[in-house]
Amino acid sequence: MQSVRCHRMETGELTTPALLVDRDRLEGNLATMAEALPGDRLRPHVKAHKCTALAALQGEQGQVGFTCATVAEMEGMARAGLGQDLLLANEVVDATRLGTLVRAGSRVTLAVDSEETIATAVRSGVSEVVIDVNVGLPRCGCRPEDAGRLAESARAGGLTVRGVMGYEGHIVGLEDRSQRTEMLKDSMELLMSAHQHVGGGMISAGGTGTYDLNHWATEIQAGSYALMDTAYAKLNLPFGQALSVLSTVISVSKEWAVADCGLKALGMDHGDPSVEGAAVWFCSDEHLTFAPEVPLKVGDRIHVIPAHVDPTVAYHEHLHLVDGPDVIESWPVDLRGW
Amino acid sequence: MQSVRCHRMETGELTTPALLVDRDRLEGNLATMAEALPGDRLRPHVKAHKCTALAALQGEQGQVGFTCATVAEMEGMARAGLGQDLLLANEVVDATRLGTLVRAGSRVTLAVDSEETIATAVRSGVSEVVIDVNVGLPRCGCRPEDAGRLAESARAGGLTVRGVMGYEGHIVGLEDRSQRTEMLKDSMELLMSAHQHVGGGMISAGGTGTYDLNHWATEIQAGSYALMDTAYAKLNLPFGQALSVLSTVISVSKEWAVADCGLKALGMDHGDPSVEGAAVWFCSDEHLTFAPEVPLKVGDRIHVIPAHVDPTVAYHEHLHLVDGPDVIESWPVDLRGW
Repeated sequence: MQSVRCHRMETGELTTPALLVDRDRLEGNLATMAEALPGDRLRPHVKAHKCTALAALQGEQGQVGFTCATVAEMEGMARAGLGQDLLLANEVVDATRLGTLVRAGSRVTLAVDSEETIATAVRSGVSEVVIDVNVGLPRCGCRPEDAGRLAESARAGGLTVRGVMGYEGHIVGLEDRSQRTEMLKDSMELLMSAHQHVGGGMISAGGTGTYDLNHWATEIQAGSYALMDTAYAKLNLPFGQALSVLSTVISVSKEWAVADCGLKALGMDHGDPSVEGAAVWFCSDEHLTFAPEVPLKVGDRIHVIPAHVDPTVAYHEHLHLVDGPDVIESWPVDLRGW
Repeated sequence: MQSVRCHRMETGELTTPALLVDRDRLEGNLATMAEALPGDRLRPHVKAHKCTALAALQGEQGQVGFTCATVAEMEGMARAGLGQDLLLANEVVDATRLGTLVRAGSRVTLAVDSEETIATAVRSGVSEVVIDVNVGLPRCGCRPEDAGRLAESARAGGLTVRGVMGYEGHIVGLEDRSQRTEMLKDSMELLMSAHQHVGGGMISAGGTGTYDLNHWATEIQAGSYALMDTAYAKLNLPFGQALSVLSTVISVSKEWAVADCGLKALGMDHGDPSVEGAAVWFCSDEHLTFAPEVPLKVGDRIHVIPAHVDPTVAYHEHLHLVDGPDVIESWPVDLRGW
């Protein structure tokens, strides 16, 4: 019998830029959240990581239902065997592919906020919906006073209305906890007033910034807690920074250094990324110019912390789960695109 | 004989968000640039579109050499039969895959700015380099006074030094043309002083914002001119806005509307995108909240103009070439990743 020699990959062998996920911190984040919001109290939002392998770990923590933002995320989750209870927390005007998922055995719930989106659900064979209510963020969602009428309309069309959802996206990122708490109350009162007229067991809301404050919702749609970013880090939540972009120093000058991690490897809407022990100057398409406190050499590797996790992950093909220098697994970011 | 019926696809059938390229404007942009900089006066930068089908059209305009920013772009161009003269205008610390390209018959020229990157080229079997010179942008490139020494070092290692490159990235985006002109002179004097000590026939520099001003360079590395974005539009260049993101209105409120084009469909480092006849409020992961001047309906489609073309394209799988409502071809964005 021949011996099998397994090559254990190290981060030093990865082509950069490469997305790393610190295993201990990821596991810590998942466990902390599952303890705070066990079972169906949490409906993890997969848009933050776009990775079914990571969603499967959330499933192992006891979460059965998941939140998605795109039809492609719904399809990918179903394909990965995670289609027991999928909520598309977003409006669509063509739900044909969702109807296909339903007929293939997935449980699909679709957010609706207008007669048009209700008609879309009816037409396509999606049978369960939630009424999406605007709770203060100027985005999707009907006015609270219109929710009852829309629920009636959906039921008249033969749909099951599971309840309401309303995302307090204007609140989850506020750094001051007391301000978050106060504004959340007003926001959730709007959702509860809509729920009174809609009925159903589901009140779906919340995010990483309000996961422990939102006591109105029956389930919280948090996503960022698993990997984290510098924007959420300012809120002093009990979740560790698990995501970083491994990058190689390719050029060193007297006052600055340049690494191979730029605008195509980082979501930039929350601003520049961070590098420990360095001041970040700016990013170009494939470059990060920064001033390190201690001189670096060409070929050195650094960890770049993104300001916003979601649009960062969407640029990458893989998430590499690491334990120090060891690459444990490489997961496809398989929920990209639309 | 059975008749073959071809279905002509229309943009209305595309899943949104979808990247559209207006055929007339693209062809106009390519022709305008090829007339201004015929043949090898232009070395189009593929990082702006990441699409070999579009690069092939640039080749049809007479451009033989191309500029790349990543090893994956170099590999993809070679795979597409466009490897006659590829310049990697960027430093790398592992050129193994470039050496493989050379051995397979591609012409590969690599930018170097340090002894370490020269050693990388020697080690990997890359035989041609350019000395990358810092001309004012704090990024890669050696000091002009070090260029001659590095060229000697490269030649001592057996490399052919084709000349110099120096990217005036701090100048190409300046809105005032006279300021661009003035600063360009200082910048290119640095490059020419380096060239004096380096030698070789290649002086590679420039971008879309300096394509008609940079008379020092033997070749211009412009990329954005093909598709354009709102940042470059401010410079009043003779290139039309060929790129837009087709998006569907999914929710309408009294004061705003929401379309399905967000942070994962748009490069955001230059700020929010634009929508004609509307004020853009903000973007979320999969949403654009905007106030249209004329009321829109759920299901309407809009064209969103990105602020920065390069990181926008990198989020998408396809570029759809369109002529009004007709989709002529759908090209894979096949140069993504690293």
